[in-house]
Amino acid sequence: MEESLYIYGKNAVTEALEAGDREFNRILISDNSRSDEKLERIKSLAKSLGIVFQFVNKEKLNQISENAHHQGVVAQISPIKYEKLEDFIEKNSGELTSVIIADGIEDSHNLGAIIRSAVCAGVKGIVIPSRRGVLINSTVEKTSAGAINKISVIKANSLVNAVQILKKSNYWAIASDHHAEDNYFDIDYTDMNFALIMGAEHSGISKSLLNLADFKVKIPMLTNFNSLNVSNATAIILFESVRQKLNFDKKRGRTNG
Amino acid sequence: MEESLYIYGKNAVTEALEAGDREFNRILISDNSRSDEKLERIKSLAKSLGIVFQFVNKEKLNQISENAHHQGVVAQISPIKYEKLEDFIEKNSGELTSVIIADGIEDSHNLGAIIRSAVCAGVKGIVIPSRRGVLINSTVEKTSAGAINKISVIKANSLVNAVQILKKSNYWAIASDHHAEDNYFDIDYTDMNFALIMGAEHSGISKSLLNLADFKVKIPMLTNFNSLNVSNATAIILFESVRQKLNFDKKRGRTNG
Repeated sequence: MEESLYIYGKNAVTEALEAGDREFNRILISDNSRSDEKLERIKSLAKSLGIVFQFVNKEKLNQISENAHHQGVVAQISPIKYEKLEDFIEKNSGELTSVIIADGIEDSHNLGAIIRSAVCAGVKGIVIPSRRGVLINSTVEKTSAGAINKISVIKANSLVNAVQILKKSNYWAIASDHHAEDNYFDIDYTDMNFALIMGAEHSGISKSLLNLADFKVKIPMLTNFNSLNVSNATAIILFESVRQKLNFDKKRGRTNG
Repeated sequence: MEESLYIYGKNAVTEALEAGDREFNRILISDNSRSDEKLERIKSLAKSLGIVFQFVNKEKLNQISENAHHQGVVAQISPIKYEKLEDFIEKNSGELTSVIIADGIEDSHNLGAIIRSAVCAGVKGIVIPSRRGVLINSTVEKTSAGAINKISVIKANSLVNAVQILKKSNYWAIASDHHAEDNYFDIDYTDMNFALIMGAEHSGISKSLLNLADFKVKIPMLTNFNSLNVSNATAIILFESVRQKLNFDKKRGRTNG
């Protein structure tokens, strides 16, 4: 049985916020809700807990709640616990570490597949924005084929801020950008911590993030059809880093032996 | 507007088969249909045209047809024209060519993403089995982001037979198999025609196909989590071939200059 991933209605959402034992993704509020004491209480609790609330079309709430009595308020609950970026960095400081910055991925299947490939490639964390794109839901969890439990997921209010913190902590920022001059296989992944920034399906990487990149890399195509699925693009770059690391270890092994 | 991709009912299916201007994927027949003259005519036309018909649960037909009056017969129409393997080989005989053998992919999104990455990587064709897995439908078409129109799609009654024909035509068969000893980046893709065999999501590559492989390769993981999405795995191997080709061209350029 799958745990219910939505909480409907003003009282239920307020109680869940007060109890503090659930991990919230976002709170969705109908954009034609009249302000009342209960709604103000929810907004104030969400603010103090750093939980994003967003105003959406009432039709969307009806659809999500399958026309349950939602009273204009639906909270989306995460199936996993998010981690803090600082804790992630601290925890992994003893070894070379890589992390994905997923800049507003919109499709749950894509986010799940990215997480799956990331774990296979030894990536330790993924940072997703709290206000845009999908957060971790049951589809992401399912598509990740269990990988979601083997990676740290960080929900950040500002990806720019997150990348700045990572850079200060000795991570190099690599952005995948099809306008880049360098190819993804022309950089050396073997001896650095890196944060690989991948853009959303349609909009790509936001300019402010791109400006923070230490390396911009493209995936060169053999045809004039230039349009990779974002999870495939992520896998291609990550497994080039795996290839380099395994070849590097092999060479080092030979030298030492 | 999207063209209807199903034809419902005995008369409509018979007429479409007789007219011969549609590309059929499969004809689905309810497993509790009573044999009658019309049904026998459909089966006989399908046989003579080499179109697969399959007996399925009546509930499945109801679902596909959204409870339209299907009379136990639904034909799935392809949005694209399939090509013959021999024509594909002939057409591409002047240059080094690669092709994917997709051994019964079950998820339309995966097949679409595979086709998308394949076209980006310069792959000229994809062979899919006529009896197992998904054929080309509107979801595959959509997920391919237009790539479906830039690749030859071959529907084969026997993938074993298809691989044998490719091998006789100077293609090397490469199978992706996580039990393999060699890594996918240890083989040289630069100077051969190759057929890359990828297995279905759960069952992998069938034994008879695996036995035909000239190379078996694995994608090594950096963790003990060994489970890549099939479209990501395909992209990783294909773009290693692209990397090698671009590096090979660069080296050759240098030597010549």
